[in-house]
Amino acid sequence: MKVTRREFSRLAALGAGAQFLPRISASAEDRKIGYCIVGLGRISMQHFMPAVKMSSKSRVVALVSGHRDKAERMAAEYSVPSGSIYNYENCDAIAKNPDIDAVYIALPNSMHAEYTVRAAKAGKHVLCEKPMATSVEDSRVMIQACETAHKKLMIAYRCQYEPANVRAAQLIREGRLGSVQSIESAFGFPIPPKEWRLDKKLAGGGPLMDVGIYCLNASRYLTGEEPVEVKGYSSVVDQDGRFAQVEETLSWTAKFPGGALASGTCTYGSQMRGYFRVRGSRGTVLVEPAFNYDKPCLLAYFDGGETLELAPDEPDPTQFLREADHMADCILQNKGPKTPGQEGLRDMELMAQIYRSCEKKNT
Amino acid sequence: MKVTRREFSRLAALGAGAQFLPRISASAEDRKIGYCIVGLGRISMQHFMPAVKMSSKSRVVALVSGHRDKAERMAAEYSVPSGSIYNYENCDAIAKNPDIDAVYIALPNSMHAEYTVRAAKAGKHVLCEKPMATSVEDSRVMIQACETAHKKLMIAYRCQYEPANVRAAQLIREGRLGSVQSIESAFGFPIPPKEWRLDKKLAGGGPLMDVGIYCLNASRYLTGEEPVEVKGYSSVVDQDGRFAQVEETLSWTAKFPGGALASGTCTYGSQMRGYFRVRGSRGTVLVEPAFNYDKPCLLAYFDGGETLELAPDEPDPTQFLREADHMADCILQNKGPKTPGQEGLRDMELMAQIYRSCEKKNT
Repeated sequence: MKVTRREFSRLAALGAGAQFLPRISASAEDRKIGYCIVGLGRISMQHFMPAVKMSSKSRVVALVSGHRDKAERMAAEYSVPSGSIYNYENCDAIAKNPDIDAVYIALPNSMHAEYTVRAAKAGKHVLCEKPMATSVEDSRVMIQACETAHKKLMIAYRCQYEPANVRAAQLIREGRLGSVQSIESAFGFPIPPKEWRLDKKLAGGGPLMDVGIYCLNASRYLTGEEPVEVKGYSSVVDQDGRFAQVEETLSWTAKFPGGALASGTCTYGSQMRGYFRVRGSRGTVLVEPAFNYDKPCLLAYFDGGETLELAPDEPDPTQFLREADHMADCILQNKGPKTPGQEGLRDMELMAQIYRSCEKKNT
Repeated sequence: MKVTRREFSRLAALGAGAQFLPRISASAEDRKIGYCIVGLGRISMQHFMPAVKMSSKSRVVALVSGHRDKAERMAAEYSVPSGSIYNYENCDAIAKNPDIDAVYIALPNSMHAEYTVRAAKAGKHVLCEKPMATSVEDSRVMIQACETAHKKLMIAYRCQYEPANVRAAQLIREGRLGSVQSIESAFGFPIPPKEWRLDKKLAGGGPLMDVGIYCLNASRYLTGEEPVEVKGYSSVVDQDGRFAQVEETLSWTAKFPGGALASGTCTYGSQMRGYFRVRGSRGTVLVEPAFNYDKPCLLAYFDGGETLELAPDEPDPTQFLREADHMADCILQNKGPKTPGQEGLRDMELMAQIYRSCEKKNT
């Protein structure tokens, strides 16, 4: 029996598709992973969904949104059947929608845990935006829920799928920089008032949770090691009411087992184009911009004067495409993602350690 | 009575010059401050002395060196009378040399205190290289000795006399960057084995004392504030015998009263062109190179797209000239130097605090 994807979707809508799934996916070539987009904000609508549109492995098949109008507009654009538009009350019904293989969770941070658990219980794989949660405890619950449901949990660390970042890590692994001494990094932007990111309950923290996490995560995939320790300071410079609940600026330093020291600065008070610079005994690699959606650039200098420049001509949303397709590959080939829940949990633990050290007087 | 400087030097050599000093210095225009160079190493011979040669306010009038041959070569080049060449045993005799107004101390760090005290006791002003000493205690002794002798003590923080650094601090003071959120900085170089800098007794510490001090000092003159706290990590990456006594790499972060956070990384294990980047709510200023002897460059971006570029066409040793002449002005006009002993002491205290925090487990 040969069914087209659209025919299959119709069968699925009648609840008759599920049993055909193994058979029609026998040819992985034909098979596209169906994503249900949970949360229609900027990152979903302007970056992730346009990326999936370009994919040969992934497609948008369902939406969860509290705004029916917006959801219907997006559904029309992505050929999502109106029966596959959910809201936050009825979205457990995604369990009955066999078109949906995975959910992409792009909600305020505090909602990640709940919707990851609900998706896993509905039998769906989960691709969850960073930070994975607002607490270490929630992160553990998410990992457990996906394990129990035998579903994959991947954290959307898009930079780990982005060519300049990947190449920087490769150069280090190949020994091109010699022994790594240090990593400097920063990322930040001036935040407008009243953003949900300024609400500690929704965000879990300030710029560290939102943008500083890129620097922290980079220090781990660049060294390939887990920090022995981290410490830092946080502050509020601008007493203008925006930072009643979260820090405005935070600077941390971390020590790695091999002796490399990393430092990262993040802020909601200043424009900081994200970058990192890795210094080794035989060379240096600078990636700047490093964490932008668009065209990160790599510049490396090696002893002896050799240089390497990599200015990928990959426009946004290519790194989202690579990310979505990696998740699709993991599902299709039943393998573990490069950035699983544990990867997210490690950052959550380290950020908690940084916040604790910010509170502590250094006497 | 009118004597030329050379005639005066001859009288001085006969011990007869001193009493004329006030009279001939009545016209500050004619007067050049006489420096006795203590220690003929690279910084003296290649940077400070060539700078003084260009000066209309300063001149080299005496030398202290353990190498008579080298001292005689330099004496010939700088028209220093052979009677004004001293060694480390007999150098207290500078007290009897009225040509000498000030000493410039460019010895291994551990010798700064002893020679500052000896110079002050000999009735000479002191311009001492950074770090001012190898301990907080020694630094206090130096300050006290110069106070007791009513002699000026200036620490040779040449960057505070360098136009790009000065302009960066001005931009901040003028409010051009808005509220300062953070400063990132780094400085380092790969050290050859067997340098005196690797001997803790001579150096007092590793790259923090030698090059990291530039970043630390910059964080203070840029913010115009004293850190509330500092903390960091140190490490040895390369187990090749060079770092038996001092750290190879060190990364610190500091919190300032206004909330600005600074971070600095220094190393003896990698080439790190010294730089700092100050991020404010309304702009950013990058100075890179910042701490080189030659032509530091400033690049500033302001909200609204305005930029400012300052690439001073000042070759080495211009910043040393400004430094030497500042000391000369302070002596001629009897005013306090911009970078007095207290300025050096503050860095010594902060570096001690950083080293202590490196030792401490962050639990």
